[in-house]
Amino acid sequence: MSKLTHLDSQGHAHMVDVGQKDDSQRQATAEAFVTMTPETLQLIIEGGHKKGDVFAVARIAGIQAAKKCSDLIPLCHPLMLTSIKVELQALPELNQVRIESTCKLRGQTGVEMEALTAVSVAALTLYDMCKAVDKGMVISQVRLLDKQGGKSGHWQANE
Amino acid sequence: MSKLTHLDSQGHAHMVDVGQKDDSQRQATAEAFVTMTPETLQLIIEGGHKKGDVFAVARIAGIQAAKKCSDLIPLCHPLMLTSIKVELQALPELNQVRIESTCKLRGQTGVEMEALTAVSVAALTLYDMCKAVDKGMVISQVRLLDKQGGKSGHWQANE
Amino acid sequence: MSKLTHLDSQGHAHMVDVGQKDDSQRQATAEAFVTMTPETLQLIIEGGHKKGDVFAVARIAGIQAAKKCSDLIPLCHPLMLTSIKVELQALPELNQVRIESTCKLRGQTGVEMEALTAVSVAALTLYDMCKAVDKGMVISQVRLLDKQGGKSGHWQANE
Amino acid sequence: MSKLTHLDSQGHAHMVDVGQKDDSQRQATAEAFVTMTPETLQLIIEGGHKKGDVFAVARIAGIQAAKKCSDLIPLCHPLMLTSIKVELQALPELNQVRIESTCKLRGQTGVEMEALTAVSVAALTLYDMCKAVDKGMVISQVRLLDKQGGKSGHWQANE
Amino acid sequence: MSKLTHLDSQGHAHMVDVGQKDDSQRQATAEAFVTMTPETLQLIIEGGHKKGDVFAVARIAGIQAAKKCSDLIPLCHPLMLTSIKVELQALPELNQVRIESTCKLRGQTGVEMEALTAVSVAALTLYDMCKAVDKGMVISQVRLLDKQGGKSGHWQANE
Amino acid sequence: MSKLTHLDSQGHAHMVDVGQKDDSQRQATAEAFVTMTPETLQLIIEGGHKKGDVFAVARIAGIQAAKKCSDLIPLCHPLMLTSIKVELQALPELNQVRIESTCKLRGQTGVEMEALTAVSVAALTLYDMCKAVDKGMVISQVRLLDKQGGKSGHWQANE
Repeated sequence: MSKLTHLDSQGHAHMVDVGQKDDSQRQATAEAFVTMTPETLQLIIEGGHKKGDVFAVARIAGIQAAKKCSDLIPLCHPLMLTSIKVELQALPELNQVRIESTCKLRGQTGVEMEALTAVSVAALTLYDMCKAVDKGMVISQVRLLDKQGGKSGHWQANE
Repeated sequence: MSKLTHLDSQGHAHMVDVGQKDDSQRQATAEAFVTMTPETLQLIIEGGHKKGDVFAVARIAGIQAAKKCSDLIPLCHPLMLTSIKVELQALPELNQVRIESTCKLRGQTGVEMEALTAVSVAALTLYDMCKAVDKGMVISQVRLLDKQGGKSGHWQANE
Repeated sequence: MSKLTHLDSQGHAHMVDVGQKDDSQRQATAEAFVTMTPETLQLIIEGGHKKGDVFAVARIAGIQAAKKCSDLIPLCHPLMLTSIKVELQALPELNQVRIESTCKLRGQTGVEMEALTAVSVAALTLYDMCKAVDKGMVISQVRLLDKQGGKSGHWQANE
Repeated sequence: MSKLTHLDSQGHAHMVDVGQKDDSQRQATAEAFVTMTPETLQLIIEGGHKKGDVFAVARIAGIQAAKKCSDLIPLCHPLMLTSIKVELQALPELNQVRIESTCKLRGQTGVEMEALTAVSVAALTLYDMCKAVDKGMVISQVRLLDKQGGKSGHWQANE
Repeated sequence: MSKLTHLDSQGHAHMVDVGQKDDSQRQATAEAFVTMTPETLQLIIEGGHKKGDVFAVARIAGIQAAKKCSDLIPLCHPLMLTSIKVELQALPELNQVRIESTCKLRGQTGVEMEALTAVSVAALTLYDMCKAVDKGMVISQVRLLDKQGGKSGHWQANE
Repeated sequence: MSKLTHLDSQGHAHMVDVGQKDDSQRQATAEAFVTMTPETLQLIIEGGHKKGDVFAVARIAGIQAAKKCSDLIPLCHPLMLTSIKVELQALPELNQVRIESTCKLRGQTGVEMEALTAVSVAALTLYDMCKAVDKGMVISQVRLLDKQGGKSGHWQANE
């Protein structure tokens, strides 16, 4: 079971020692989709055109969540992100909102979890703001798209 | 735009006033799926049979996250959950892990977001613990399954 | 020194025992002002008309801060706000932004600190978002306007 | 609207990318004033002479708040302060308490918000501890006094 | 293994369902001791007589920690303490400081963990403030002294 | 009173300035013991052999607590641990569980408090999970075992 680096040789959880890793410029991009009824998306878009508040709140929630990542994910290292971006885009033809986040850091460990946490919490916030009209909303395709920096180098999701 | 209750008549975000709502027994169940390679699932299962640590860590992370919900989701009310359960189940035939959480409360507001946050963070923790071997894992089908209590009564997801 | 209720008879800090107080409907309203250059206010207003993002971010920060009050103010009781509103208003003739927050609770202790914390953190957020163009911004007149509920009843600020 | 660095070209909030900035020694000093009745100040001073607890609690609250700055202010970068000082001084002739905080860091981004957050939360704590006797206390003149380090160099408040 | 209530019938951790328990007035008292060199205790006492800052800081840390209990202890319920007291006492003849905390709540679950967390963190804070002069300090005898309320009634430690 | 570095020349608490200290590789190890009845230990051991959940939960709680150290201990510096290990070991002949934690960092300040906080919170979690069967459990011998790095060099506890 040695391949799961968060477990030691006895299968016990620990926070992996990154102290000997070199600092490098790191970056990760993740995405998530929220599927809803056409009516719900329409409400968001109308609001979005006028005030932008639904997307603005979700964006802030995502940014804040990226900073809380090591508090949420037990074995994540605390780290000091140098950049967080969260973008939301309405896809009316698919009845979806797409969320993308890119996080950056110069440090000893990657920022994949921060980007994934940002899109997840932004998606949950979207759900929260619209659940009065649409409890059947579904969050899907939460995944890492791209990761750069560190010993393992550049990784990209398929297609 | 009055249907989105988290926005006031001007489209500004606020935390909805629930002060006049009656207390009622509330309960919500949510689910999420994490898809991975057969090899990754095998590593988790083998670990799971012996030590259970991967699932144990994800379960704790989900429980803790449910308690942090109002800190993560900007317009959620702080509340005092009386029960949180998070279960993880390996589905080898689907190369998936299924996560389900049920939260309960006696109070003035529902606990859907708490259950959804629990499964989301448990899924992210699973990703974190396995990302060294499988960065292509995907979290999907994060959704509310069932909700009871409150004025809107019993709601169930389709099928 | 018995009048300062947060200090016991020896002058030591403690969290006042409210266990014997009756629950009552409580409400508090606070305000704060941020003074800036006309150019800075103009930038906010222009942004505000189009996107509202500066005010949207400050509003969310204020709402979130009200929920964190007992974590920030050492002797505040943890409590479960039932409503939080934070409003921001540009006052071009005064080169100011006025911030007002109202918090509500049914409980054993007042919510003055929650409303004051909300306006303070919304004001700090405004400063943060504009400090690149105007480091001389000043936050002033942070005060309680109105407080209802509890044994001491209705209190209002002068004029 | 490009001058407000926390908004991108579309007016959306993001956490500014500081990854390419050089580390430098940074320092910021902020102040705040709390105005109260002579009787309230007298109570604090008497307590202060004997036990110092009111000021001690406010000082600790301010120090703790500086460390929470990136959690409170949505677009602030997480950072690792190397020094935090918070001082409180009774000004009997003005019926005020003056609060000053200096924060330091070696890093890629300034610490103005940390110092401003420290004095704000110390002031709120003072209000909290004295509100049983004086709800009309007012927090004012919360401002940056001095900032050193970074590309923009040394900045000082007027007069 | 059914006796450990935090584990379900499969040995998985969960947050016990207290939703059907009646509210009752609950109270718990815990203690801890910190043993140090006579010189260290003397430094604290001298400081204590003049300023009280070491004990004041530890007392605040303990109070704040009691409020964070459900965030620290994974299976603790979030709850709203109505009273927290933390007292520190120098015992020169034993080269010890004794810490005692009493927490109160009207609710569905006990407050033992809150009182134990308060004394533990107050003790750690004492260690932190004195470690420059005495790294060999030892925290011991952290235990529950008394617990009232709830179905199990009044419990007292031996002797 | 100058020897207590967390107090300035007036006896006021502050966060010591470490900005001029050199970065060095730092490491600290701490231990704690939890004494219980033979029956309680037996329940943990039986559970431990099958599922490991009690130790798994305590281990995660300790790891998470180490990351929260600067939030719990008022004058601790925020820092970015590069490694956290928490181990629990049943000592049936002594009716005890021994907990040991080692934390590492490359930075300007030591990690003693992080290791001590980790073992303390792991011990509290053990108490929480077993308190339904054994309220008389006692946490003792919480102490620093070993500390390396920094100007003061290598320190080891006696015997």
